[in-house]
Amino acid sequence: MISQVIRRVAVVGGTHGNELTGVYLIKKFQQFPDLLKRSSFEVVTLLANPQAVKSNRRYVDRDLNRCFAEEDLSNPDLMGYENRRAKEISAQLCPKDEHGADAIVDLHSTTANMGLTILPSSKHPFNLQLLAYLSEIEPSLRVCLGEHSGQDAPMLRSLSAFGCTIEVGPIAQGVINARQLQQTEMLVHAILDYLDAQNRGKPLPTPSHLTVYQAIGSVDYPRNSVGELQAAIHPQLQFKDYEPLHPGEPMFLTFTGESLLYQGESTVFPVFINEAAYYEKHIAMVLTQKQQLQLETA
Amino acid sequence: MISQVIRRVAVVGGTHGNELTGVYLIKKFQQFPDLLKRSSFEVVTLLANPQAVKSNRRYVDRDLNRCFAEEDLSNPDLMGYENRRAKEISAQLCPKDEHGADAIVDLHSTTANMGLTILPSSKHPFNLQLLAYLSEIEPSLRVCLGEHSGQDAPMLRSLSAFGCTIEVGPIAQGVINARQLQQTEMLVHAILDYLDAQNRGKPLPTPSHLTVYQAIGSVDYPRNSVGELQAAIHPQLQFKDYEPLHPGEPMFLTFTGESLLYQGESTVFPVFINEAAYYEKHIAMVLTQKQQLQLETA
Repeated sequence: MISQVIRRVAVVGGTHGNELTGVYLIKKFQQFPDLLKRSSFEVVTLLANPQAVKSNRRYVDRDLNRCFAEEDLSNPDLMGYENRRAKEISAQLCPKDEHGADAIVDLHSTTANMGLTILPSSKHPFNLQLLAYLSEIEPSLRVCLGEHSGQDAPMLRSLSAFGCTIEVGPIAQGVINARQLQQTEMLVHAILDYLDAQNRGKPLPTPSHLTVYQAIGSVDYPRNSVGELQAAIHPQLQFKDYEPLHPGEPMFLTFTGESLLYQGESTVFPVFINEAAYYEKHIAMVLTQKQQLQLETA
Repeated sequence: MISQVIRRVAVVGGTHGNELTGVYLIKKFQQFPDLLKRSSFEVVTLLANPQAVKSNRRYVDRDLNRCFAEEDLSNPDLMGYENRRAKEISAQLCPKDEHGADAIVDLHSTTANMGLTILPSSKHPFNLQLLAYLSEIEPSLRVCLGEHSGQDAPMLRSLSAFGCTIEVGPIAQGVINARQLQQTEMLVHAILDYLDAQNRGKPLPTPSHLTVYQAIGSVDYPRNSVGELQAAIHPQLQFKDYEPLHPGEPMFLTFTGESLLYQGESTVFPVFINEAAYYEKHIAMVLTQKQQLQLETA
């Protein structure tokens, strides 16, 4: 067992204002704070981007979940709404502060068919054990490691080494799906229960293996010379997140009906396929490799 | 046969800027205008709300597809972006004008599981025969009659008695689904082919019956005293558009886990269930009655 004392956990929603699963769970938790109470630590809740929530948009000026890189947080020239919010949230949750958060759970959703997905804040052994526990109690859960996971990433979750982003999908922006709301809430409770048991010296049993999907890069949509889309995700790939994509299999279908094939040399496992918010980031999908991790045990 | 001379057909997309199926079909048609060419009439294409398309939002100031009521079009005080666009489009497409459109096909999408749906511009017998033809060649197609169908409705399609809105779903806003793009394009071609055959005095055969879903009202989400949502669509009803909802069956699931049942006295067929854009319109779903229409024949 890898021990780690947790004094305070932050549960965050509305980092993207139109991902309503997190928004409405935070509203619920704020209305019924007893739901999150655990004996060994404090839980704080945070609606991260209230202006974006109000406007039912992902963000107002800039994607808040790309504003937490160390250099941006310390840059006094970045004063847009989300940059200011990032600085406020960083000050509030900074784990170095006595009142900071030792672990952060940030609630998101995606238009991709990713089911219940966790993107951990780091590959710290303590975090990986938590993920192994969650994977065992919820077999449909998948763990995705970002290309820049860890404290150098610009995501809100990277304010702490412990915790994760939860993604649930497929769901349209601006929509609540009751089942996905329940699944996400269940996962929040499972995380808190695990951390609480660890804190109290009664760790919950965890398997010694963990399957993860390690991001290795992303692919943009085919575009013309002025940047306009020329193709959509191929119907054979649409909604096939986490399934193997082999060399030579179709990736895109152009608007004139031509299939474009995956040209890579090795099998990959695409995720975030056709995520609405990633069109502007020039990401049609994120490619991952499926890996089996052997975890440290007691 | 009910004859009607069609001189010009307008195919419209981007009436809602984040419904990309229509946006990208119009871009395609404008790049390859020959695709829409028919021998007996002219086809014009229109991207109805270019500012909203640019912003990837439904609208800028106001829902364009609610700006076409006669009294709004003639009200000089309504000068927001969409009100001005509505006046421009009305002037451009007005069928009374020599250069106007005799039929309008407006391309939309929905986050509801409505498959391929047509909302006709009117119940004019000529229009109903077109729908009967389309229903026969595409059995999955459903026809939905709005509560205020006809020329008094505030939708763009209501500029003409002939034509329709095409809805395709489920699809998230801001996303392109290749299959739905193809299905919508196929339907546009089928409409043009039918009109062209009519025009040329060689009408395509149509069945004498048509199943329609007649809207009879809508239901809002349960809200608290300040208007905040208290429940989501019940998991048993989610994605069940066009299926019968019987008295006593679950409609909503509150955030605290209580099932709220349909209290009506007769079976209805809900559509637009959990449409993202309708939260702000206080519409959780539109209730319809399933009807069989006997059509006029030659």
